[in-house]
Amino acid sequence: MDFIEIAKSAKKASLEIADLSTELKNEALLKVADAVDAHKEDIFSANRADLAEAEKLVACGEINKSTFNRLKLDENKMRDMIQGIRDIARLDDPVNKKLFVRELDKELTLYKVSCPIGVLGIIFEARPDVISQISALAIKSSNAVILKGGKESKNTNRTILSVINSALEKVEGFPKNVLNQVFSRDDVAEMLKCDKYINLIIPRGGNSLVKFIKENTKIPVLGHADGICHIFVDESAKPAMAEKVVTDAKTQYPSACNAVETLLIHEKFPYREELLAALQLDEIKLEFNPENWAHEYGDKILSVKTVSGVDEAIEHINTYGSGHTESIITTNLENAEKFMNKVDSAGVYFNASTRFADGFRYGFGAEVGISTNKTHARGPVGLEGLTIYKYKLIGNGHIVADYASGEKQFHHRDLTI
Amino acid sequence: MDFIEIAKSAKKASLEIADLSTELKNEALLKVADAVDAHKEDIFSANRADLAEAEKLVACGEINKSTFNRLKLDENKMRDMIQGIRDIARLDDPVNKKLFVRELDKELTLYKVSCPIGVLGIIFEARPDVISQISALAIKSSNAVILKGGKESKNTNRTILSVINSALEKVEGFPKNVLNQVFSRDDVAEMLKCDKYINLIIPRGGNSLVKFIKENTKIPVLGHADGICHIFVDESAKPAMAEKVVTDAKTQYPSACNAVETLLIHEKFPYREELLAALQLDEIKLEFNPENWAHEYGDKILSVKTVSGVDEAIEHINTYGSGHTESIITTNLENAEKFMNKVDSAGVYFNASTRFADGFRYGFGAEVGISTNKTHARGPVGLEGLTIYKYKLIGNGHIVADYASGEKQFHHRDLTI
Repeated sequence: MDFIEIAKSAKKASLEIADLSTELKNEALLKVADAVDAHKEDIFSANRADLAEAEKLVACGEINKSTFNRLKLDENKMRDMIQGIRDIARLDDPVNKKLFVRELDKELTLYKVSCPIGVLGIIFEARPDVISQISALAIKSSNAVILKGGKESKNTNRTILSVINSALEKVEGFPKNVLNQVFSRDDVAEMLKCDKYINLIIPRGGNSLVKFIKENTKIPVLGHADGICHIFVDESAKPAMAEKVVTDAKTQYPSACNAVETLLIHEKFPYREELLAALQLDEIKLEFNPENWAHEYGDKILSVKTVSGVDEAIEHINTYGSGHTESIITTNLENAEKFMNKVDSAGVYFNASTRFADGFRYGFGAEVGISTNKTHARGPVGLEGLTIYKYKLIGNGHIVADYASGEKQFHHRDLTI
Repeated sequence: MDFIEIAKSAKKASLEIADLSTELKNEALLKVADAVDAHKEDIFSANRADLAEAEKLVACGEINKSTFNRLKLDENKMRDMIQGIRDIARLDDPVNKKLFVRELDKELTLYKVSCPIGVLGIIFEARPDVISQISALAIKSSNAVILKGGKESKNTNRTILSVINSALEKVEGFPKNVLNQVFSRDDVAEMLKCDKYINLIIPRGGNSLVKFIKENTKIPVLGHADGICHIFVDESAKPAMAEKVVTDAKTQYPSACNAVETLLIHEKFPYREELLAALQLDEIKLEFNPENWAHEYGDKILSVKTVSGVDEAIEHINTYGSGHTESIITTNLENAEKFMNKVDSAGVYFNASTRFADGFRYGFGAEVGISTNKTHARGPVGLEGLTIYKYKLIGNGHIVADYASGEKQFHHRDLTI
């Protein structure tokens, strides 16, 4: 089918799923989880076919070992996939929440109500578990999706979505074409142009994928390219805390976007040499090259810079950072407050590891991704980030002319929700 | 100065104004209002220079009479400008609001706090009163702005902003370069490319300006191009209410974006002929041409279409509408609810005129504009739409490794704000 036809039917489905009841959506999610569980052997078998192909590509160097590992589904990943769908069924419905109720005048009441965004375009790389996760998030938030996965996981992706869609077909009242999948590079190009039907693009993958997408579409993109996180060790920082937090932020999962890349140290911090020695003992390689101040290592390498104080630290971060997550280690409350107010990032921490920047750790229950945008949604994004709102106004034949003439006046009284 | 230098210093100013106190911002706003009042003769004089130039252009047909009228400042507009600034001083500060406080674990607390977006690029047409209004909104929401007005109002714009900036210079602690202005077409091109420093573009002007901007930038744009609003008169609508509401929505201010453009009538509505006759008596010209279903007349002309019921009305609106504001006139609650849930527009009304779609009428106190976007802000946008949020996390040396190992568990307890 033509991409544009798929997009059109996704748009239609998005209007149909928009006001589905929470009960029906949760029923659908639980049936989807059961179906994935029941058909896991089919999914493993499709995954083995993909892995066999991928093995050849690893051999000739076309894909690397870590992509191969992300592609591979095992019992643990499968269990997490199924549990993830059930967890999303248990979360609060983000749609149809009253955000405010305001009486504008007698018998004229305004409701601000959360509603889905519409059609999401999801472009992701090797990880086939993204399919079930995004499908579940889309169902819960009443959005339609068009998924485009990596070609390496084509068989796995096709099988997972077909299992999910077969389950949804058996749920009475659940609309068709909510979850759609495309496979070719041309489809990606069409998706990025399709601002008539697609309301939000969510890339799930490495920096270069995200950068390419941001450069090539006018549709809003939710996500982040770089994750250049900083820790500033202030003059008064407790040395043991500084070492513990920096080590965690760099080594607990070095390839994560919320891992620290640059350590800024106050020039009067008395334990500078001890701290650097301890970090090296923790197998962190230190770099002192200004050319790497905007570089994301994704590895156990850390840029180190000496700064004259909190002001220079803030300026460095606002210049070289990516607006993701930064932390100050200090016992000086005034500096901590200044840092958190002046640093222009999604996450500004005080005496905590940057690795906490994560939807599950924040208690959102599920995560769409982490955004470094300055509009719509910022930081770890949960189900709420997949919604917008509409205004419902209920009157009794009210007209504006009566207010323009002064015959009537608005009284703007907020009602409790 | 180079555009990029202006943008850079606006970015710097945006970081400085980000955590200014409410008191200082309000003091600045009141001083600005006083200064505009004190210098209104200078502004009128600059405006007369613009009007003299514009008169020549009207004579040779290069600008039309309505642009000329929008350009002209009189005592009434000046009074409204000054009052508008004072009104914004009285509104709640949208910045630094705690949106939630959640204890993730003992001594590890997450704050979601509203904060400014950063640098706003404002592109507007002939109305010079936009300058003072947007400047006041920017100050209150702690954003920096770069303004580009129409060339017809160059002298007026320059004088107004210079009066405002002179007043701000005298406010101790108020940062420099918060309010900036550029004048050339090249600057617009630079602005639209400048996603490094500009976070949001707000066009204030006609459809073609907004369309041009949306087509030519990757920076998020807040606004709307078309306003193709609909009223659906259901089978059970009270005929007097239908006439009253449709007439208000079409004639109270026909060139407004929230004026109705298409009337959909249920085929079994018994008073169809009477309604159409009454609308014609109200000097509304009726059109029955399907080619105009996505046309914004901006005049006392109304497209009319007969539909088989609420479902066809919803489908028509979701196909031809612009997602702005639509109303159903009915006594059937079930149809009203269906209409409000299924119509995918920023405003969905029941027995009320579409003309209510307005920030002042909604009780926002000030309006940035009306958005038909599906992300960030939708419908009439007040000060809140000029903010985003950041997450502040305050710990005591907390690291993720302790939670990954299972040694510690999150307890995710929401605290009252």
